[in-house]
Amino acid sequence: MTQGTARRRGRRPGGTDTRAALVDAAREVFTEQGYDGATVRSIAARAGVDAAMVNHWFGGKEGLFAEAVLKLPFNPKDVAERLIDGDPDELGERIVRTFITIWDNTGGGVFAALMRSIASHDQAAHALQDFLVKHIVERVLRSLDLPDLEFRATLIATQLMGMGMVRYVAQFEPLASTGADAMVAAVGPTIQRYVNGDIT
Amino acid sequence: MTQGTARRRGRRPGGTDTRAALVDAAREVFTEQGYDGATVRSIAARAGVDAAMVNHWFGGKEGLFAEAVLKLPFNPKDVAERLIDGDPDELGERIVRTFITIWDNTGGGVFAALMRSIASHDQAAHALQDFLVKHIVERVLRSLDLPDLEFRATLIATQLMGMGMVRYVAQFEPLASTGADAMVAAVGPTIQRYVNGDIT
Repeated sequence: MTQGTARRRGRRPGGTDTRAALVDAAREVFTEQGYDGATVRSIAARAGVDAAMVNHWFGGKEGLFAEAVLKLPFNPKDVAERLIDGDPDELGERIVRTFITIWDNTGGGVFAALMRSIASHDQAAHALQDFLVKHIVERVLRSLDLPDLEFRATLIATQLMGMGMVRYVAQFEPLASTGADAMVAAVGPTIQRYVNGDIT
Repeated sequence: MTQGTARRRGRRPGGTDTRAALVDAAREVFTEQGYDGATVRSIAARAGVDAAMVNHWFGGKEGLFAEAVLKLPFNPKDVAERLIDGDPDELGERIVRTFITIWDNTGGGVFAALMRSIASHDQAAHALQDFLVKHIVERVLRSLDLPDLEFRATLIATQLMGMGMVRYVAQFEPLASTGADAMVAAVGPTIQRYVNGDIT
């Protein structure tokens, strides 16, 4: 653990330029080594800062990845924890409301960019698989101890991705302008069934 | 309907070069004037052939559009008619099975190209809205005389688009390799609820 001694430009160890340096280094290292291959240590070393700064600024490797590579407007771990906290039989509704709230607030542009990178088969596609499905959807489902967890997780991904495509990318009406409550009423039961209903 | 007089092989007015000329002309005219603005007459005139050839080769304007602009591997009208034909309470299953069968057969590459053009906001996005939703999904729903037809149609679009994104574009496992029967069991009930279930 020697990277703590490195300094790129004599910057202060905990400042916002440290944060920016970590984002830049993370983009490089994740691109070179993939999500699993990249380590917090190697990213911090590349940025020339102490590895503890990754936890300080991003809560860990996945938060850094979410911001640096996926440019997500939220921290996946926080979202997963908020979703888990509550009645499992209302999880479908909570998932839809959270999804709509987050992406409506970004105007949908960030979601569209994400879908573009999936559709163009760039690295973000695999990143997303490793990430959004495993780090949010599967994590939430794991808290319920269900069979067919991975199939359920990908089914949920189909409905959420499609909802985002129609609402934010293709902007088909009337769905694109439908309010959050009506969307929750319409799509919540679908997600709930994928969470813990009969899918065979 | 005069297309019965056309010859398939002797070339000249009804031959395959007529067909190719119509596809080329259609791409230009649809691009210039949009789906609603373009007429069979104007496309045939641009191709220098009789308007009856459009019916002969493509079954009408929408079949020509589907092939020339969207490059779909099926005729939307035929698909809609096959879907309508049967028990309305099994429509969800039929829709999922038809979707999976068509796109699995193309290896998913055509679907991915379609999503790319939607995600990049090119003209095909609007074309798809005008087309796949209105000419297949809404047409099928119209045969059932239901309330909230357009909202239901766009909800169905969310689930189908998302299923295609996950199965053919992102290729998330295990869903990407799940057989047609299991996909129908899992997703059919979702579509069925969007078709004629309680969505409020």
